[in-house]
Parts: sequence; C-alpha cells; structure tokens
Amino acid sequence: MKLISLLTDFGDKDNFVGMMKAVILKINPQAKIVDLCHQIKPQGLEEAAFLLAHSFRYFPEGTIHLVVVDPGVGTKRKKILVKTKNYYFVAPDNGVLSATLKLEKPQKIIEITKEKYFLKPVSNTFHGRDIFAPAAAYLSLEEKPESFGKKISKIKELNLPKPHKSKNALSGQIIYIDRFGNLITNIKKASFNRLAKKSFFKIYCGSAVITKISRGYVGGKATAPKALFNSFGNLEIAAPNNSAQKTLSLNRGDTIRVKAQPL
Amino acid sequence: MKLISLLTDFGDKDNFVGMMKAVILKINPQAKIVDLCHQIKPQGLEEAAFLLAHSFRYFPEGTIHLVVVDPGVGTKRKKILVKTKNYYFVAPDNGVLSATLKLEKPQKIIEITKEKYFLKPVSNTFHGRDIFAPAAAYLSLEEKPESFGKKISKIKELNLPKPHKSKNALSGQIIYIDRFGNLITNIKKASFNRLAKKSFFKIYCGSAVITKISRGYVGGKATAPKALFNSFGNLEIAAPNNSAQKTLSLNRGDTIRVKAQPL
Amino acid sequence: MKLISLLTDFGDKDNFVGMMKAVILKINPQAKIVDLCHQIKPQGLEEAAFLLAHSFRYFPEGTIHLVVVDPGVGTKRKKILVKTKNYYFVAPDNGVLSATLKLEKPQKIIEITKEKYFLKPVSNTFHGRDIFAPAAAYLSLEEKPESFGKKISKIKELNLPKPHKSKNALSGQIIYIDRFGNLITNIKKASFNRLAKKSFFKIYCGSAVITKISRGYVGGKATAPKALFNSFGNLEIAAPNNSAQKTLSLNRGDTIRVKAQPL
Repeated sequence: MKLISLLTDFGDKDNFVGMMKAVILKINPQAKIVDLCHQIKPQGLEEAAFLLAHSFRYFPEGTIHLVVVDPGVGTKRKKILVKTKNYYFVAPDNGVLSATLKLEKPQKIIEITKEKYFLKPVSNTFHGRDIFAPAAAYLSLEEKPESFGKKISKIKELNLPKPHKSKNALSGQIIYIDRFGNLITNIKKASFNRLAKKSFFKIYCGSAVITKISRGYVGGKATAPKALFNSFGNLEIAAPNNSAQKTLSLNRGDTIRVKAQPL
Repeated sequence: MKLISLLTDFGDKDNFVGMMKAVILKINPQAKIVDLCHQIKPQGLEEAAFLLAHSFRYFPEGTIHLVVVDPGVGTKRKKILVKTKNYYFVAPDNGVLSATLKLEKPQKIIEITKEKYFLKPVSNTFHGRDIFAPAAAYLSLEEKPESFGKKISKIKELNLPKPHKSKNALSGQIIYIDRFGNLITNIKKASFNRLAKKSFFKIYCGSAVITKISRGYVGGKATAPKALFNSFGNLEIAAPNNSAQKTLSLNRGDTIRVKAQPL
Repeated sequence: MKLISLLTDFGDKDNFVGMMKAVILKINPQAKIVDLCHQIKPQGLEEAAFLLAHSFRYFPEGTIHLVVVDPGVGTKRKKILVKTKNYYFVAPDNGVLSATLKLEKPQKIIEITKEKYFLKPVSNTFHGRDIFAPAAAYLSLEEKPESFGKKISKIKELNLPKPHKSKNALSGQIIYIDRFGNLITNIKKASFNRLAKKSFFKIYCGSAVITKISRGYVGGKATAPKALFNSFGNLEIAAPNNSAQKTLSLNRGDTIRVKAQPL
C-alpha cells in the first residue's frame, strides 16, 4: 500500500484539499493520505520547494509526493511525474520540485498527458482535482509511470537564492520563517563551518550580533536571540520562548551576514 | 468499508473535530474519515450548504457526509439522516442539506431519535460529538437508516439567493470567496450563456467592467480582473496572481451584473 | 491496530506535523493517526493540559496520546511514556500530562532513554520528530513500555489555577476560550451546585450579571449572555450566536465570581 503526501497552497478555508482527497479515494479506496502542509502562501513556489526538500526523506520509501502549488494552472506549463530511487513526485513543472531533485536524482521524468487518467470534464482552474490527484491515485494502484505520458529529459529550475561567499564572510538570506517566528536562513552547517570553525565569528541579524552557536532554543539569557543549526541543518536565528521575527523585526528575504576573524 | 466526510464550523483552534473523530473510531475502528472543511464561519449555514453541494459528488459512492453546522444545538431542531441513490447525509435539520438534495434526490429521510445510538450523557452544546458522530459511525457499520428513527417527508429549506433575470440582464450575487480572493457568484454557465452567448456583454463588478470570458486565471494583462467559469461551473471574478476581493473591494453578498447587447 | 492521537503547538503553517506523521508511518505503515489539536498557542502548556484532560477518554481504549508542547526541547527535561489502565501517553515531562493523570491514574511511568528508538541524528530542536514520534510508533507496534527506559515514580506537575471558595461565594477563572468566543471557566458543576443549588445566585462576568443557568446556547433574549454547563461539565459563559469574549471584553485568566444568597 502506497502513501500519498499532499503539499499545496490551498489553505484550509475551502474545500479544495477535501475534494482532492475525495478524488483519490474514489480511484483507490485503500490509499493512505498524509497532509504535509497546505498553508503555503498563495503561489509560494519557493516556500513549497523549501518545505518539500526538507521533508520528503522522512516518508516511507515508495511514498508519492503530490505537490500542487500551481500559479500557471490552465496555461501550457507541463504536468509531470518524477520517479527517483525512493519516491514518486507528481506536480506542475514550475520548479517546485527542483530543490528536491538536487538531493534525490530523477530516474524518470514523465510528462502527464494521457487523458484517460484525468477527471472529466477537466477544468482550467483546478488541475489539483482534475489531473494531479487522479495521477497520484492511479500511481498508488501500481500503474506504471510510463503509462501517463512520454519521457522528457528536463524539468524547470527554480532560481533559489544562494549565500554569497567571500574570503572572510558569508552573506545569506532568511528563506523561511516558521510558526514560532524562528528565522531560517539558507546558510548550511558545512558552509558555516568552513568559514567559522577555526575563527572568532560574528553573525549580524538586524540589530543583533551573535557570537556563538547554541545547542538549542533554551538556556542562557532569556531574551537574547540565539543562532543554532536547526533540524534541517540550516543556520537559524531564534528568540527563546519568543518570536525572533518580531523581536528583531526581520522578514523573509532579509540578509544575515557571518563575518570571521582568525583566532 | 465506508468513508465518512466531515464538514463543520468547528475550526481547528479547539479539540472539537478531534473528539468527533475519536467517537467515530471508538464505535468503528475501521472507519476512514476525510475532512471536507472545518473553517465554515461560525453558524455559516449558507457557506456550508454551498461547499457541500459542490463537493459531495467527488466522493466515492456510499460515502457518509457528516455535516455539523448547528446554530440550533440544544433546541428542538431535528437531527436527520438522509439516504440518496449514492450517498448518506447526517446533519441537523436546518437547511444545510437543501442545496445538495436538489441535486441528488432523497430516497429516505429519517429523524434520528433512537437514544441507543447516542453517546451518554448527551450534552446540550455538542451534538456533533454526542449524536451526529455516533450516528455516522453506526451507519458506517451497516446499521440500517430505519434503525435510527422514523421516516419523515420533508426537510427544512435554506433560502439561498438566486440571480435575478430580466430580458437583457442578469443580476447575481457573490456567494463565496475562496482563499485566493476569487469571487464566486451564483450565476451558472448555462444561465449566462442563454443571455450572452450571441451578444456583446458587459460584466459589472464593483469598479471593473469585464467584456470577455477567460479560460483560466492566467494570461493577458497581468493586473486586469478576469471573468471565468470555475471548476464548479459558476461565474467567478479573479485577479491574476492577486486577490480580486482586495483589488475590487468586493464582499460576499455584493451584486455582479451582466448586461447583454445584441450583436 | 492501535490509534495514535496528536496534540501539539506546531500549528499548520509548517511541515512539523506532516514530518511527525511521516516518521510514524515509516516505522509502522499500519498506524492510524488522528489530529486532536495543533493550534495550541506556542509553549501553551496549560491550554494543552486542559484540552487533553477533556478529550482523552473519548478515544478508543489502547490509544496512544502523543503530546508535543515542548518549550524545554534540547534541555535536560525528561521524555516520558505513561501507561494507564486504558491509554498510553508519550510527552515531555513538563506537566502537560498532570491534569489528565489526576483523572486516569498512571500504572507505569517510563523515562524514554533507549537511543535505539530514536531517529538519528537527534536534533536539539525537534524531538517531536526525532524522539516522541518514533516512541509512539514503536509503541503502536506492541513494543513494551519497559523497553524504552527505566521506570520512574513521579512526573512534573503543572500548577493549574483552581477556584477559590468561601462560604457564600466561588471565584473562578476563565481557563480557555473556544473558537466561538465561549468563555470556559474552571468552575465545575458539582462545585457550583454545592454553593448555589438551594439559593439565589449571581454570576459576575465583566459587566454582566447572570442569575440563571441555561440549558444550551440558544433561546431567551437573543443578545443577553448566558451561563451554562458545557460538554466538559465546566461553567461556561456564552453569547447566543455571538462571541462572549468580544461582547463582554473578557480574556483568559479573568475572574468569574459566583455569589449565593440563601432562599
């Protein structure tokens, strides 16, 4: 029995997610469905790409990751199905899979075109219900990827911001802010360590300067912001029992700089 | 194995939905439960009626649709179970099913009165947990509808707003606004086409005038509002990658007019 | 097949809950998971303790209640597994279980220490994913509680506010406000009845004085606030089809007084 995970920007205000689940279960009553996240901000491709890349590996092998963040719905953007060593992905071809597929190489990329798998009539506004959910459902019934259309060789890339490195500094960006107001940057532990492991370092984030890496969220002066490597391996700025976003007045896209000074 | 769908105004802030699921699974551990929507605004009968009528058909045959939007909880309003050709519905008799039962004729309407199916003690404030969830759960165990009480012949009707038609015009209302700020009207495609198919037409929505029907959300001048028929078959006003609600300052209940002028 | 319920302060904005479910299903693909609530305010131990104590009994016997409200994540606070007559609980040892375990006596308390059940590497910031979810998953595979670590004899207590009683009065607190704006107090029905059953009484809540107990939310003068005993057996102040929180301008922690005057 295959698992289907759902990642969308549909929120929970409407019936969109419920209808996708209905369609899946009508095709495969045995399907098991898990919500990964539905609160991606409308059309938030970068946010969805980030969450998927940091989540997909935690699922059982064979999981079908169904991703519907689809600002181009109804246009000529492709619908794709990707098979990797351990997972399947079903999504619009708009770059939302690109960060993930750098971590888990595609073995097959199929353009979904076979109309026999579509829910008819196909609307121009809700391919999540009419094309993507049915594709994931038929895939969970062991339908072969090749049945859904022809192989293609490339997917669209998303241009995600990367940290800028110089000899004594690293300049990254806040790429995600979680419910707790923790500021997650695109600076990875390995990259930070290459710069700062054998040096004094200063992390500049808004009005704060942080000079050490903490092990976790709690401990030390209660109100001072902390820097730590989070459960994804990214540099994160946190305020103990508080929102770093609010206390530092920082937002997605803002710069976090690390400067090193040899010991 | 029967599926149970849940549609309520309980939101996700509290434990209400979780308790209903607990009660269902205590009675039928094999039950499969799908959330249709829980963010109906408190006591929002019209909104719930709209979402149900546009969703129920996507579920597998035999699905039990459990609807708890229940401003009259604890009063003498009836609790009903309705069997149609393809589905079951369990809900308070307050009109929330009436739009749906115009699309799918009731075969049996049962007033739920048999206390042996209630969770005791029955509270006066949470019949979702104490009466409706148990009824759906026992129904999913193949209990016969007649076991729950006596047949009745009528359900309460909800007075939903209908478009006003004149010779050269159609005047509808915004009846639902989704997460993306799309404005969904009660003007159906067939009705629009009878008026406007062989004519020039103008759609008046707030400060905007729209003179064509688009195929989808994207394309054309990026910021101009668009009119299209959505995945429910209703006339919808959308702003590409933006909220039409915000850009047009329109709200639920506001009027959308279509005027036709012969070619 | 055991059921796992989830109660967290993770909200739905991020992928935290989805990842916990992924980890559970990777260990036990047959696990059945029910969301009790994820919208506990960040670090809201009292709120979580209240919801759990009023919900756990509605679940099937044998349910594993997984509670992750964990302000001390990464510190030396213990991770515990508690077995009672009918249920299992997996949580940080921070008092979040204490109200529940007054209603359902612990038979065994185990400190979770056996690393073979952890997801490696264990982060310092997300024990929900790395320790608690795996523990619940292995427990659902019939692993014995003793396998997870050594027995301990005590858990941490949470100091929950209690009503203050005097001869002719009872002074309680608003301990929870639900989605509908209903004000739930810590005054229990039995306690109220001992004071007020054979007396006139007045309930003072903000600017309002209420002199009777209603059966439910509806009926009587449409706008007057009502007092009733809710589905948990607590005294609750409600405004018919309205938010009592807004109409009375009251909040969590505010005092509700009951005064009795002999007949």
